[in-house]
Amino acid sequence: MGEAHAERRDRMRERCSAAGLDAALVTQPANVRWLTGSDTVAALLLTRDGAEAATAGPTGAPESDGGCRMLTVPAGTDPAVLLAAHCRGRTLGVEEHHLTVARHRAVAEAAAVEQLRDLGHAVEQLRTVKDEEEISCLRIAGEIADQALGELLESILIGRTERHLAMELERRMVDHGADSAAFPPRVGAGDHSGRADHSSGDRRVEDGDFLTVALGACYRGYRASATRTFVVGLSPADWQSELHRQVFAAQRAAREALTVGGGYDEADRAAQRVLGAAGQPLPGDAAMAAREGVGAGVGLEIGEEPHLGPLELGKLDNRVPVTVGVGVCIPGRGGVRIEDTLVVRPSEDGGPELLTITTKELLAL
Amino acid sequence: MGEAHAERRDRMRERCSAAGLDAALVTQPANVRWLTGSDTVAALLLTRDGAEAATAGPTGAPESDGGCRMLTVPAGTDPAVLLAAHCRGRTLGVEEHHLTVARHRAVAEAAAVEQLRDLGHAVEQLRTVKDEEEISCLRIAGEIADQALGELLESILIGRTERHLAMELERRMVDHGADSAAFPPRVGAGDHSGRADHSSGDRRVEDGDFLTVALGACYRGYRASATRTFVVGLSPADWQSELHRQVFAAQRAAREALTVGGGYDEADRAAQRVLGAAGQPLPGDAAMAAREGVGAGVGLEIGEEPHLGPLELGKLDNRVPVTVGVGVCIPGRGGVRIEDTLVVRPSEDGGPELLTITTKELLAL
Repeated sequence: MGEAHAERRDRMRERCSAAGLDAALVTQPANVRWLTGSDTVAALLLTRDGAEAATAGPTGAPESDGGCRMLTVPAGTDPAVLLAAHCRGRTLGVEEHHLTVARHRAVAEAAAVEQLRDLGHAVEQLRTVKDEEEISCLRIAGEIADQALGELLESILIGRTERHLAMELERRMVDHGADSAAFPPRVGAGDHSGRADHSSGDRRVEDGDFLTVALGACYRGYRASATRTFVVGLSPADWQSELHRQVFAAQRAAREALTVGGGYDEADRAAQRVLGAAGQPLPGDAAMAAREGVGAGVGLEIGEEPHLGPLELGKLDNRVPVTVGVGVCIPGRGGVRIEDTLVVRPSEDGGPELLTITTKELLAL
Repeated sequence: MGEAHAERRDRMRERCSAAGLDAALVTQPANVRWLTGSDTVAALLLTRDGAEAATAGPTGAPESDGGCRMLTVPAGTDPAVLLAAHCRGRTLGVEEHHLTVARHRAVAEAAAVEQLRDLGHAVEQLRTVKDEEEISCLRIAGEIADQALGELLESILIGRTERHLAMELERRMVDHGADSAAFPPRVGAGDHSGRADHSSGDRRVEDGDFLTVALGACYRGYRASATRTFVVGLSPADWQSELHRQVFAAQRAAREALTVGGGYDEADRAAQRVLGAAGQPLPGDAAMAAREGVGAGVGLEIGEEPHLGPLELGKLDNRVPVTVGVGVCIPGRGGVRIEDTLVVRPSEDGGPELLTITTKELLAL
């Protein structure tokens, strides 16, 4: 744990005392890691003047660091319950979106406080704006994914299964220094292409297929995500080129809509405008409202705050990394999906910084 | 969903009405899969005379099957909340060990019932005893892991990292028909060997190392687990042979202690007796009580009920698959860990059935 993490804990303490909390028990893993810098800490108790971190086993970390005392949790003990037992005061904040009802009950019994209150997504909100060190980890994560994808495209693809290509991408990302894949790479061939939710299966790559590859590396805990769609064979069919052109234009419009102070909904609306103008059927109001939107924040997690959905309120800040992805599928034929990770930057700094620089052209492989 | 799953839902219904519940909302993923047979169902509402399953997207499954109606959940909607809104009656059971406090609140608001009650681990308990079809899936999962491990041992190991060996094992298991690895394979070389909790890292395999490999395949959702320890080089050192002999004897004693009607604690105590007799330092009472024990049930999850710990109460039933693993480490030098997956069977059927048949000899590779 370094100064940056001590400073983050101070900011969280300020939030807590502003909310009238005597202490906060943080259990959501990415929140704990962000506040401690450690991926072996299972739970963190923030008090007005200090902090206690519970780890499953000896970490080699100093017993106390930046005002954070390290405790080792015996097997079979819930770290949150162990820390709660150390809590004094009137009100303890807990993460009700992460603690199960059963754990919450055990924490309430162990804590010598008058009441538990909900911390809500306070830590997630503090995590939204990244410092330059976090952004450089995301930049490296993006480069690793680019390298792995570039190497894969130089190999023979026809006849291999989606699952094999996914595993090769994962191995190559680790070769290039990733902790791991940010998520299981999603490779979709033929009628599986263009989908955001497809998980790699046994479909083999065939000549003439659209091939959609979604991948991301995890570097020092930070996760970027990129999606590209290619054509397998000598040259794309006309419908493939046209569909790719439309999705590319819509995704570019969404990227360009990322501005400091711009609304969370603008990128998605920009993409929908372009697709609509290109004659793509747009979802009705209800379906539109239910859509995931064009992307979300990334950092220690994929899909963290903010969510760039069509009905999201809120404005983008400087140094917020987000994914921006657009896809269109034709049932039975497949489709195109293109996604990048970018960092919101002010126009005087050149606007959004692209972290996933692999070409978005429609390559024929 | 087939007859077996409809019959499981009937058994769960009986549990519920015996507990005075009008309906049960099941959200724990393995529980949902066990009751529906589907891995795309996100939540299940069991009512006195029927069932409703909520799926994220169209599944291709019939709209209704074995008395279970399929509902599609719009993006951004919590499947549990959607189903709760369909719930009528006085009392609804929910899984408080799985639902977060926030989801529990949303379910309570959506459900038109007087009160929510805790289902506890009712479904997990029903899952403990497997039918022969489940066991045959576990048997195949064990065979797949054996094949992948056997192939790895024929390749050059010296100079490769733990992480690379782990990824190769994962790829080979998928090659042999696994859905995926049951868990990220844990490869430990040298001073990392013999540990149950080590995760594969950048340590390279060297001549003279102990090499501990823990792997498992997932086949149709069912997960087996095996751990073996080898020596890299021409022949083991005396201390390596002796340590392996002790761990092997202790693990065998634990396996042989698996009997229908035997206590959950017997396998662990049998292993500790052998290690103690061999002169291994045994943990004190407190540490002993805090130990994970020698293994746990396996099925749709690794580490499900029952837990074979030193203080566990309860008796083993026929057709309960469990892991039995014993390890001893010498700080700085590494150690030996051996683990199998077995099915508890009555002695007239030949006693415990071994599902992970790879040799447990100390091979020099």
